[in-house]
Amino acid sequence: MAHKASIFRKEHFNAAHRLNNPAFSDEENARVFGKCNNPNYHGHNYDLIVKITGHVQPDTGYVMDAKLLSDLIRKFVIDAFDHKNLNLDVAAFKNKNPTVEHIAIEIYDILRTKINEGLDLKIILYETERNYAEYPA
Amino acid sequence: MAHKASIFRKEHFNAAHRLNNPAFSDEENARVFGKCNNPNYHGHNYDLIVKITGHVQPDTGYVMDAKLLSDLIRKFVIDAFDHKNLNLDVAAFKNKNPTVEHIAIEIYDILRTKINEGLDLKIILYETERNYAEYPA
Amino acid sequence: MAHKASIFRKEHFNAAHRLNNPAFSDEENARVFGKCNNPNYHGHNYDLIVKITGHVQPDTGYVMDAKLLSDLIRKFVIDAFDHKNLNLDVAAFKNKNPTVEHIAIEIYDILRTKINEGLDLKIILYETERNYAEYPA
Amino acid sequence: MAHKASIFRKEHFNAAHRLNNPAFSDEENARVFGKCNNPNYHGHNYDLIVKITGHVQPDTGYVMDAKLLSDLIRKFVIDAFDHKNLNLDVAAFKNKNPTVEHIAIEIYDILRTKINEGLDLKIILYETERNYAEYPA
Amino acid sequence: MAHKASIFRKEHFNAAHRLNNPAFSDEENARVFGKCNNPNYHGHNYDLIVKITGHVQPDTGYVMDAKLLSDLIRKFVIDAFDHKNLNLDVAAFKNKNPTVEHIAIEIYDILRTKINEGLDLKIILYETERNYAEYPA
Amino acid sequence: MAHKASIFRKEHFNAAHRLNNPAFSDEENARVFGKCNNPNYHGHNYDLIVKITGHVQPDTGYVMDAKLLSDLIRKFVIDAFDHKNLNLDVAAFKNKNPTVEHIAIEIYDILRTKINEGLDLKIILYETERNYAEYPA
Repeated sequence: MAHKASIFRKEHFNAAHRLNNPAFSDEENARVFGKCNNPNYHGHNYDLIVKITGHVQPDTGYVMDAKLLSDLIRKFVIDAFDHKNLNLDVAAFKNKNPTVEHIAIEIYDILRTKINEGLDLKIILYETERNYAEYPA
Repeated sequence: MAHKASIFRKEHFNAAHRLNNPAFSDEENARVFGKCNNPNYHGHNYDLIVKITGHVQPDTGYVMDAKLLSDLIRKFVIDAFDHKNLNLDVAAFKNKNPTVEHIAIEIYDILRTKINEGLDLKIILYETERNYAEYPA
Repeated sequence: MAHKASIFRKEHFNAAHRLNNPAFSDEENARVFGKCNNPNYHGHNYDLIVKITGHVQPDTGYVMDAKLLSDLIRKFVIDAFDHKNLNLDVAAFKNKNPTVEHIAIEIYDILRTKINEGLDLKIILYETERNYAEYPA
Repeated sequence: MAHKASIFRKEHFNAAHRLNNPAFSDEENARVFGKCNNPNYHGHNYDLIVKITGHVQPDTGYVMDAKLLSDLIRKFVIDAFDHKNLNLDVAAFKNKNPTVEHIAIEIYDILRTKINEGLDLKIILYETERNYAEYPA
Repeated sequence: MAHKASIFRKEHFNAAHRLNNPAFSDEENARVFGKCNNPNYHGHNYDLIVKITGHVQPDTGYVMDAKLLSDLIRKFVIDAFDHKNLNLDVAAFKNKNPTVEHIAIEIYDILRTKINEGLDLKIILYETERNYAEYPA
Repeated sequence: MAHKASIFRKEHFNAAHRLNNPAFSDEENARVFGKCNNPNYHGHNYDLIVKITGHVQPDTGYVMDAKLLSDLIRKFVIDAFDHKNLNLDVAAFKNKNPTVEHIAIEIYDILRTKINEGLDLKIILYETERNYAEYPA
């Protein structure tokens, strides 16, 4: 019987963003989002960790080929997010606030369609070394 | 339906401590706690990670405002523990050995009363880069 | 009633390895394992984190003595793997591909016999800062 | 005779920026600055290390009070740069390309007027973990 | 002709300390040293980097054997400072304030007598990730 | 007048190696190189930092284009060293012991011919987080 294990692959991207809810007043946006509400944007070095859980394949010793996983992340996430303005350049955030939670969920939704259904997927996303999110919980 | 995610906030404090059980003999304390039993104390740079799990709020994109979380940690934990002698300056450790497990539990108990009941709470506490604890398991 | 918590201890070892399945053709090994298939071996600085979960003992404040845990890891894992060629010097990998998943499982099997049965055990093994595995899932 | 030593203080800020030279054609800007030329900006978590060299004061054991140094950095650099768009929000970069070299020089010029003339000053600025600059050389 | 290079060896120790100058009034000590003046001590995980500069020996390819350097640091520095109260347990700080500058100078003085005179020596000492010192400048 | 600054670019490679001097007896090799003398090789994750010092170009704000520097390092160093056995696969170490000092000197010699003569070059090479070298001193 195969063993169940998880593998993790870390990639990164650099992006600008702004936190803002157009349904809020300016005062409410300033109060809720503080410095992150700057209309001229600010930015981060995002560290992205993708966790894949499944059975270790006896012939390779892999849960999943980490090189293939890296290629999928780069093609479908990094190329779309790196050196971009998340609010202006990424369609998903035209109408959704690019908080670290929402970006993690968006990356999950992108990768979920690319990863074998038999494998579990989790996203860990660092906005800074001190603020990060995990999805699903 | 809202998505369930976790956010993490990292803070730190520097403190002195000594591991000792007054119910043990001197020899037993020396044997069990080794160098950590030095009666003159030693110390650490503690890295504290607080994990909050709950639903992502649709209007903010937050599980919880990380700035508010940081303020709570600083007000109720860091101000009480930073640049302190845990055995002498923190009431909770007058009669409880300040192991990394016990400090993590104490921080949990402090923050549990300050964080919305609908949110799950977990504490990860690094005593050194190589020794750390998580509570609850 | 005792609290349930986890403690973590980090150790490291440096080793050479090669990924290869003798049942595959040379072409298949090259395609599946890429640069990791180099017959002359390559190597890594492995960071090993051992996680132990159990009840905090009231008299010590320990789930398990981290010094004792460190001694067990060094005696039964580090001494066997450090500055070794995993394929040639470690019996377990004579007939098993030393992927990060397989090495984590082997370390689990070694330590499981040395750690009190009442304590849960998990292995987190970093092959590089960007590739790591966890067992059991 | 007092000993000469250096102290270092690390702070950080998050900012958006764009690399562009208005004297270049669009093609030249794209060729020279690549992805960093995105007109919608991208961003980074900047890690700033300030190095101060001078004599250790016999009465304090300090080259300079690190708390005072931190306060100066925060007041004159972090408050001006953090959560800002360097091109739009910081006057110095209205007509100067905000490369990591230029930002380091600007921070040096700001702090040089605030630090005692008897102390040497050096700036180390990380744009990412893998790209950083030091000024003066 | 041999090449001149530097090697670095990192070790660590955990210690308690207090900053205080008995020649100052209580008010002056509180003002100058702030939280670091706590009479009950606080503590740190110190990271120590020893830099040795000299000619690369043609027969070994070493400036100096890093294992031998590590042994010297452990025997003469770590064993004396680790899990100690610097003010109470280390003779050098009975009458000298254990600032990060003074500790670096003390470590230099200890190691200078143990390292071959033909090799240059420099000490880099981290009190926290954000505060560190280098001696000599 | 242009300002003089340094830029740094970090890359990495994973390799196997063995420390041995064929002019030494087996006993002497074992004594001098210890565990690093294992005839079956061991390995490391090498972190390579290349430091370039020169004048900041007024039109770009660059000492040197970091992307171009990265390309040179990858083409002439990483492609030659990554996932290789340094003793067997890299001609320079057929007759030279691959200590961290010698590898740093070899990388310097490779890159010195590729980098503009007006720019100073320095190599910092981490064999492990705790052992590293710098050349030239």
